[in-house]
Amino acid sequence: MAGSTFGTLFTVTSWGESHGRGIGAVIDGCPAGLPLCEEDIQRYLNRRRPGQSAYTTGRREKDLVTILSGVFDGRTTGTPVSLLVPNEDQHSSDYDKLYDIYRPGHADYTFDAKYGFRDHRGGGRSSGRETIARVAAGAVAMKALASLGVTVRAYASAIGPVKADPAVFDPDETGRNPFCLPDADAALRAEAFVRECMARGDSAGGIIECVADCLPAGLGQPVFDKLDACLGRAILSIGAVKGVEIGDGFAAAAATGLTNNDAFVNRKGMIAKKTNHSGGILGGISDGSRLILRAAIKPTPSIGAVQETVSRQGEAIQLSIHGRHDPLIVPRAVVVVEAMTAITLFDLLLQNMTCRMEYLEQIYKK
Amino acid sequence: MAGSTFGTLFTVTSWGESHGRGIGAVIDGCPAGLPLCEEDIQRYLNRRRPGQSAYTTGRREKDLVTILSGVFDGRTTGTPVSLLVPNEDQHSSDYDKLYDIYRPGHADYTFDAKYGFRDHRGGGRSSGRETIARVAAGAVAMKALASLGVTVRAYASAIGPVKADPAVFDPDETGRNPFCLPDADAALRAEAFVRECMARGDSAGGIIECVADCLPAGLGQPVFDKLDACLGRAILSIGAVKGVEIGDGFAAAAATGLTNNDAFVNRKGMIAKKTNHSGGILGGISDGSRLILRAAIKPTPSIGAVQETVSRQGEAIQLSIHGRHDPLIVPRAVVVVEAMTAITLFDLLLQNMTCRMEYLEQIYKK
Amino acid sequence: MAGSTFGTLFTVTSWGESHGRGIGAVIDGCPAGLPLCEEDIQRYLNRRRPGQSAYTTGRREKDLVTILSGVFDGRTTGTPVSLLVPNEDQHSSDYDKLYDIYRPGHADYTFDAKYGFRDHRGGGRSSGRETIARVAAGAVAMKALASLGVTVRAYASAIGPVKADPAVFDPDETGRNPFCLPDADAALRAEAFVRECMARGDSAGGIIECVADCLPAGLGQPVFDKLDACLGRAILSIGAVKGVEIGDGFAAAAATGLTNNDAFVNRKGMIAKKTNHSGGILGGISDGSRLILRAAIKPTPSIGAVQETVSRQGEAIQLSIHGRHDPLIVPRAVVVVEAMTAITLFDLLLQNMTCRMEYLEQIYKK
Amino acid sequence: MAGSTFGTLFTVTSWGESHGRGIGAVIDGCPAGLPLCEEDIQRYLNRRRPGQSAYTTGRREKDLVTILSGVFDGRTTGTPVSLLVPNEDQHSSDYDKLYDIYRPGHADYTFDAKYGFRDHRGGGRSSGRETIARVAAGAVAMKALASLGVTVRAYASAIGPVKADPAVFDPDETGRNPFCLPDADAALRAEAFVRECMARGDSAGGIIECVADCLPAGLGQPVFDKLDACLGRAILSIGAVKGVEIGDGFAAAAATGLTNNDAFVNRKGMIAKKTNHSGGILGGISDGSRLILRAAIKPTPSIGAVQETVSRQGEAIQLSIHGRHDPLIVPRAVVVVEAMTAITLFDLLLQNMTCRMEYLEQIYKK
Repeated sequence: MAGSTFGTLFTVTSWGESHGRGIGAVIDGCPAGLPLCEEDIQRYLNRRRPGQSAYTTGRREKDLVTILSGVFDGRTTGTPVSLLVPNEDQHSSDYDKLYDIYRPGHADYTFDAKYGFRDHRGGGRSSGRETIARVAAGAVAMKALASLGVTVRAYASAIGPVKADPAVFDPDETGRNPFCLPDADAALRAEAFVRECMARGDSAGGIIECVADCLPAGLGQPVFDKLDACLGRAILSIGAVKGVEIGDGFAAAAATGLTNNDAFVNRKGMIAKKTNHSGGILGGISDGSRLILRAAIKPTPSIGAVQETVSRQGEAIQLSIHGRHDPLIVPRAVVVVEAMTAITLFDLLLQNMTCRMEYLEQIYKK
Repeated sequence: MAGSTFGTLFTVTSWGESHGRGIGAVIDGCPAGLPLCEEDIQRYLNRRRPGQSAYTTGRREKDLVTILSGVFDGRTTGTPVSLLVPNEDQHSSDYDKLYDIYRPGHADYTFDAKYGFRDHRGGGRSSGRETIARVAAGAVAMKALASLGVTVRAYASAIGPVKADPAVFDPDETGRNPFCLPDADAALRAEAFVRECMARGDSAGGIIECVADCLPAGLGQPVFDKLDACLGRAILSIGAVKGVEIGDGFAAAAATGLTNNDAFVNRKGMIAKKTNHSGGILGGISDGSRLILRAAIKPTPSIGAVQETVSRQGEAIQLSIHGRHDPLIVPRAVVVVEAMTAITLFDLLLQNMTCRMEYLEQIYKK
Repeated sequence: MAGSTFGTLFTVTSWGESHGRGIGAVIDGCPAGLPLCEEDIQRYLNRRRPGQSAYTTGRREKDLVTILSGVFDGRTTGTPVSLLVPNEDQHSSDYDKLYDIYRPGHADYTFDAKYGFRDHRGGGRSSGRETIARVAAGAVAMKALASLGVTVRAYASAIGPVKADPAVFDPDETGRNPFCLPDADAALRAEAFVRECMARGDSAGGIIECVADCLPAGLGQPVFDKLDACLGRAILSIGAVKGVEIGDGFAAAAATGLTNNDAFVNRKGMIAKKTNHSGGILGGISDGSRLILRAAIKPTPSIGAVQETVSRQGEAIQLSIHGRHDPLIVPRAVVVVEAMTAITLFDLLLQNMTCRMEYLEQIYKK
Repeated sequence: MAGSTFGTLFTVTSWGESHGRGIGAVIDGCPAGLPLCEEDIQRYLNRRRPGQSAYTTGRREKDLVTILSGVFDGRTTGTPVSLLVPNEDQHSSDYDKLYDIYRPGHADYTFDAKYGFRDHRGGGRSSGRETIARVAAGAVAMKALASLGVTVRAYASAIGPVKADPAVFDPDETGRNPFCLPDADAALRAEAFVRECMARGDSAGGIIECVADCLPAGLGQPVFDKLDACLGRAILSIGAVKGVEIGDGFAAAAATGLTNNDAFVNRKGMIAKKTNHSGGILGGISDGSRLILRAAIKPTPSIGAVQETVSRQGEAIQLSIHGRHDPLIVPRAVVVVEAMTAITLFDLLLQNMTCRMEYLEQIYKK
């Protein structure tokens, strides 16, 4: 496979380029009987849609989704769910002059190195528009998870060097500021930082945190398909992500066993943990406490300020990228992190259905 | 699949428990014609073998590997290479009292939650001994990579809070101190820190850095199987890893486009990069510069100091773990990170063989 | 996976129902640089299109294909090729009365048994229209094979009890009679047989033979992914196929070693075989001679004559199926067998690219 | 993957050569809690063991299996079950003279064509000994199926041109004659035929039939992973198989809709079928009636009579193969067909666990 399919049992096949006919996803392995309509998906797509603040691109795509197959009488049928989002509002000619220029921080050079040529219009397959397929498929996973009581939620925990204060975490605040920060004060400082970047034709990055609650203990496979490994692959497969960590993550490397171990306790007859440095995963398997992960998002590589680069032919070039780019991709990437997390969790929930003979007996011995 | 197979074309299937008959790996998809003997593998296994310093477990396993299949006349035949490392020097009775106790930071509870029961002896399948399969298979990948000119090398970049200074990087030093640190001064400070931890029955973690050189540009698939995503999964599937980052990683989240973008330059007719913040990957595809990744290793959860926990039945317990445990796993994990990186890179090298019609013509149109 | 993706490196994901929005295929892993346009695909779709003779359904679908992604400047880019054929000319109301009736020989009952309910309109996902995805993807595989000199061709070798005489094999004749038989005399007898069936509201089946020429020796993997096993899965995954055989097939079971073994000979310096009982495969690997397979196609289950059956509720019913059904599906299935064979062969050609270290050296050591 | 792993959720990885250290299988994805011991597996291996009649090879291998991992306290733990059968009684020197000779009907030439060289001793990886891995893994699948009430049973339905009469089917008879035929009279005629073949240094083939009872309706996936397709791949992956058919198979091609359709009936409140031409599968999904398949086995290619062939260098050679070969492989292949059927069915049973949201609710909403 050339890497456009994700998942083992709940599989998502993504296709499409920025300036082609559209972007789509085919979900195979969605269990039958899940209530599903286009609106269930559209509301997630709306969260990644551009043009919602001064800090994202001014493009005006509606990104309307159509369900082409796999749903009948308002419920999934167990057959592939094909989703289509047509492209529109393309300014392909904006890219004509980039035809043989390698933009720093972009995949232009590596696509040419791999395939010998590329669809250069709007970044082609490496465009951020590719995440539409992820968000659409993630919405289906999210609906399925919700029906089992599992919730997944992401937000920004840092914009550039500005970090949200965990002590003032306010979930409602994430919907009020344009950065999805759960800390109103940090949002103000983030705004100042991003405006500064924009003023000099520069761009910013940040950190997205994602948590899942009410996940059953037992998800993930002990060795190569550990829950952390599956999540790591999912999150690092998102365009601008340069790092991922679970629970205390890199901070755990500096801790000691005494401070990092989470003591088990008996909470009203249920085994629980006193702390959650592990981020809800032990030995690669969910432990029933909150799942916590963080993704490092690099600053948008398309910037207006002048950069050095070369053409395909190796000529030195002074490049200043104008057009409609996001000075900060973090707020639009929040729902993408959420989507990839949901897809991964639902796939592992399905995989877990066959881990004990007694589960088979429950279903087959009626 | 239950997650014991890794890879798409160069696949490694791992099996075995800490106190069972042995640990093994079956490699499928290794191309025919690679010179291979047991010594090629043994020297990697020797690097992860316990008992090599005062800072690792005192167990005395020889961990001798046997090639059971797939090699004839000193070369791989293209059929599965089955590798076996028998277990020995087990003190299973050490674990009798842990039969129904959930050790903090370990997978005891999650295995029970998933499967209903577990092989508790020595951690069973979740033991660090499982990494023998990875190192053995990694040695084969490393040999294949070397024959194509690619090298992979890992070392510690931090032990607990002690960080190696990148400015004094000395590759030879990594073999001289017991921590695999490339900085002799940092090694002295690490020693002090680890001794302190040991004195109070505590343990330490650290960071492992891995670099690959002479990798062709073009490896990795654009969307879900990005080179970073594949590496992320590989590294996060190692027991104690809590985070992974590529290039500048989490630091990139605080940078701006102007400082984080790597300018392309023409270096003697070859397209190269002036800096390498990206760690050798752009758009999920190798860019021909040095590949750089880092893994955060949590402190060993087995500690002598008293911890709170519960039994399987939910009774509160004061636990002090005695036995032969590593106060610091980082030095032995270095070769594991190297192995998983090598397996991932060689698999992607194989996958890349089919990305252009012209490659097919080169092989088939003779 | 829920079985809608076929292939290891050249993968085809199929989606769509008979009376939904359309039928589609996403091809992932097609190498970059293959010249491809819609007409390349359309001419294969035209061969399976209904309404081309008195012996197939009178439906008038144009089945026009659109390439939605993966092709730029007339060549494949290495990214997913998404193909769409919208549905039209549906008479969904024809199926209203079949809502809770289980048609004999159809998948109505088994879909309900599996999923709890089904899209009953036009057979839903189990409709013959699903093969549009296979034929469209097969056209791409065929184009790629052709560029390497490999040809694949199928035709009918029997219609009901009427068998083509191998001694009078005339390739041009397959395009002249409505049954794709390579024997004009057999075609006349087939016509009489099928007319007889139609007169009593009955239907017919037959056998399709498929051959591939100029296939390199070495394709197929020794154990589970033998060339015959891969072809067997491919062909038996086509709706009405009840058997598949390679070379002499079932006749070989009655032969002896002396008559069934193919002697090797030296033909102008090349190793060849004197006979081809094996059908071009030895030990699961192509031997360089002509590949030969045959598929048994059952008679169309939808018939006008009265049949006994039951409703979903278990009531006995006398059923006579009217509507637009093929009394004989064989002529339209010929191109489907060709397509599945081509997809399988091209996938194995790709897989074979990594079977020797020397091939890697040829591509990477430049 | 290079084709040594079979299955999606219950996966079997096979390794080993005829004259190497041994043959083995790693089963991943076996649910936890299945009672399992070596004797469960040994009794299946004993059925394929050579030397049990005058009509099979005189080799005296004990083929004793050891469980190396994945079983604790007599039950599977959910982790990989590694099985090992060491090789013994090898006469490698028997094969010295075959080093550069291409035996007709064998994989010698195709292995060289694929890999450039081969382990020629005893057929290497293409030896019939490879089926030990299948039988061992099949025994585990069989045990799991049995615990859910499903039974799988194979026998010979033809030896060379001698066919068992379905009307006199006697299951006990299959254990009484050396051919596994369920018809004593046919067994006598088969004996005469095989003796005749042996007298002239020739060999024989035959047909193996396999049936499964009490299979739940609903197994198999609608499109590419149809139950028939999965079984077809499984059976055609066995060395000497040249054809496979389901239910009426090739005979269905000559039938008509009226005679081939199976009428549904209401049998004591359960939906059943009046006949079973379909062999228990409709639309690729099990229909709850008996599953029936047949495999065509070619005559053993190793024969004592003189054959023409060539050497690796292309020299013409007169070859007469002496050594310990089976004049008839059918009786020993019966348990292999049974094993591959069981593995396929159990894998699809696992896959089916996730086809409905209500199954997930049954397991997770407690």
